[in-house]
Amino acid sequence: MRTQVAIIGAGPAGLLLSHLLHLQGIESIVLEMRSRADIEATIRAGVLEQGSMDILNEAGVGERMQREGALHHGFEFAFGGQRHRVDLTELTGQSITVYPQHEVIIDLVAARLAAGGDVRFEVSEVALHDIDSAQPSVTFVHAGQGASIEADFVIGADGFHGVSRPMIPAGTREDFQRVYPFGWFGILVESAPSSDELIYAQHERGFALVSTRSPSVQRLYFQCDPHDKVDNWSDDRIWSELHARLEHNDGWKLKEGKIFQKGIIGMRSFVCAPMRHGRLFLAGDAAHIVPPTGAKGMNLAISDVRVLSQALVAFYKTGGEDGLNAYSETALKRVWRAEYFSWWMTRLLHTFDDASPFERRIQRAELENVVASRALRTALAENYVGAF
Amino acid sequence: MRTQVAIIGAGPAGLLLSHLLHLQGIESIVLEMRSRADIEATIRAGVLEQGSMDILNEAGVGERMQREGALHHGFEFAFGGQRHRVDLTELTGQSITVYPQHEVIIDLVAARLAAGGDVRFEVSEVALHDIDSAQPSVTFVHAGQGASIEADFVIGADGFHGVSRPMIPAGTREDFQRVYPFGWFGILVESAPSSDELIYAQHERGFALVSTRSPSVQRLYFQCDPHDKVDNWSDDRIWSELHARLEHNDGWKLKEGKIFQKGIIGMRSFVCAPMRHGRLFLAGDAAHIVPPTGAKGMNLAISDVRVLSQALVAFYKTGGEDGLNAYSETALKRVWRAEYFSWWMTRLLHTFDDASPFERRIQRAELENVVASRALRTALAENYVGAF
Repeated sequence: MRTQVAIIGAGPAGLLLSHLLHLQGIESIVLEMRSRADIEATIRAGVLEQGSMDILNEAGVGERMQREGALHHGFEFAFGGQRHRVDLTELTGQSITVYPQHEVIIDLVAARLAAGGDVRFEVSEVALHDIDSAQPSVTFVHAGQGASIEADFVIGADGFHGVSRPMIPAGTREDFQRVYPFGWFGILVESAPSSDELIYAQHERGFALVSTRSPSVQRLYFQCDPHDKVDNWSDDRIWSELHARLEHNDGWKLKEGKIFQKGIIGMRSFVCAPMRHGRLFLAGDAAHIVPPTGAKGMNLAISDVRVLSQALVAFYKTGGEDGLNAYSETALKRVWRAEYFSWWMTRLLHTFDDASPFERRIQRAELENVVASRALRTALAENYVGAF
Repeated sequence: MRTQVAIIGAGPAGLLLSHLLHLQGIESIVLEMRSRADIEATIRAGVLEQGSMDILNEAGVGERMQREGALHHGFEFAFGGQRHRVDLTELTGQSITVYPQHEVIIDLVAARLAAGGDVRFEVSEVALHDIDSAQPSVTFVHAGQGASIEADFVIGADGFHGVSRPMIPAGTREDFQRVYPFGWFGILVESAPSSDELIYAQHERGFALVSTRSPSVQRLYFQCDPHDKVDNWSDDRIWSELHARLEHNDGWKLKEGKIFQKGIIGMRSFVCAPMRHGRLFLAGDAAHIVPPTGAKGMNLAISDVRVLSQALVAFYKTGGEDGLNAYSETALKRVWRAEYFSWWMTRLLHTFDDASPFERRIQRAELENVVASRALRTALAENYVGAF
């Protein structure tokens, strides 16, 4: 079969690109290895910048996000027994929306299918061919049948472990990476929120984050050994650790509740440059990973897709390839700023076991500088809301 | 003999403290191991914050500084073949004055001696006694004669390698330290300035700094191996290295001239906490060292002395010890902020041989964020001019 744009991966990047192209009359097929039920049920956190919300709204998939997403005008830093608010809206005029990534996926899948979009779930043996030529193709197996798509372009939106990025020959790309010596232990809890806003807590026992999912479900994280096992953490041990890291003498209390999900995620910074080889273009986690501390992951996927969809639309309207040729450099500019910010937030807030006493005091001095300096808080807020 | 305050060390901290106390009718004796000629001839760089200038002016020793010091309203970052100005005055309303440390010392020695101050040069075998008691004393040898000073207080302003800090028992103090894996090769050159303002250059070959001393003498530095030897660097090799790090395609040229001084300085961050034990109070480099990248060294010495002189004056006027008891905590607050800033500037601008490709790109991304974000430039400028 033939299409204009073959898209590997039905995450936010792949689905949103497919939908944006559709709105401009460009055909695509999306291939996804997992089932629809699976991708819609894999609970992941999500913070959307105003710019990301704008794109989702323009694409006509923002209705539920606006209704159910929680608009946040600030967050809190907690350290040294005190909490300090960062007023994002006052500092930047913008705010962010907490709306989980799987909800974005649910909305995008529904929109694609409602528009007659071709999204194929549970495909296997996906392979890319001839990406150096003007006639690339993708082969795969679907419902027991081998199939092939010929396309003008192939988009690798299949995540960090996908098949697309390795197709860029090693000699023509450079991978930049840092793997952090800690992970996040995340839980979902049935309870009312403990805080109206997110709390980023720095503590000698390790970082902790109070987040939220809904009025009745809360998302909490704490820094852990990335090689630890979930089974090592009883509910009691989890609560004890969270209380120790989050509660100080200011009377604030963490609300407990029934823990109904536990998981450990590793922490990595990664960039592949360039994000394009021939007719293959990478977008989202296939090209770059940020640690979740800066809440940038989904926003980078969406900003990649904004740049890429404009380049593809320009190509199909005019035949011009300037946008396509500029894609990697344009996208990487924002990627590196987000990588810097995510690395900075991670370094600022986590406990590094190998940090010297001097480095621990410098970390505290930097936190104190952040909360004391309106200028530094503004710089932080600009990066957090994506106002640049 | 007896005095109220025995001061070890005739650097900016010791001399300024002696003079400020004198202006309030408090006696002191300053002991210095080196000769007057030697301390006045040891050429050292110096950048003064507005607050430091204010104190020197209030102490009546600012006349020549105002006349000969060079007021700077900004500086430049150079990286990636481009220069970017940081407008300190526009961002903070303040500026800095380039006025070398040995000139401050010349002015302070002159002022002390003109006022009949007791400053003893070329003393040896300085030893502190009974600092835990209310009657501490200092013994020393001067002009071949042993002598002893009984005082109410002993001030350790004798620098990083002085005898004072080790008198604080190891179990009662904590030392925080980082030694950097590079040094600065500094030269003094007979030439007109190459730039109206300081240029901080980040380059893969290493950091370089274009500074100035006068209309006819310039101060240049470049990052080097701290264990390198001055003799390994011919004038030709020095100029070649400076041109490579500083000149890009923008037409700016470094002016050469006769090099009449060369030296290598190591780079260290260090803090001793607390800065007080019994009747011994540390000030300046005796208590803390910053790498010179943030231009904070002399300013910290002066701000220590401001706090300490006020505490001593309050003690002699009222007998109250609150100021003395708060000295270490008050001084360390500013010290840690300066340590953080100096560490940050050092990390931002130097080439670290062990940095991964990811870390090198993050460093560049942070520099790009600094020059792109007015908020981040403002935070930097506030720290640089000491506006907090």
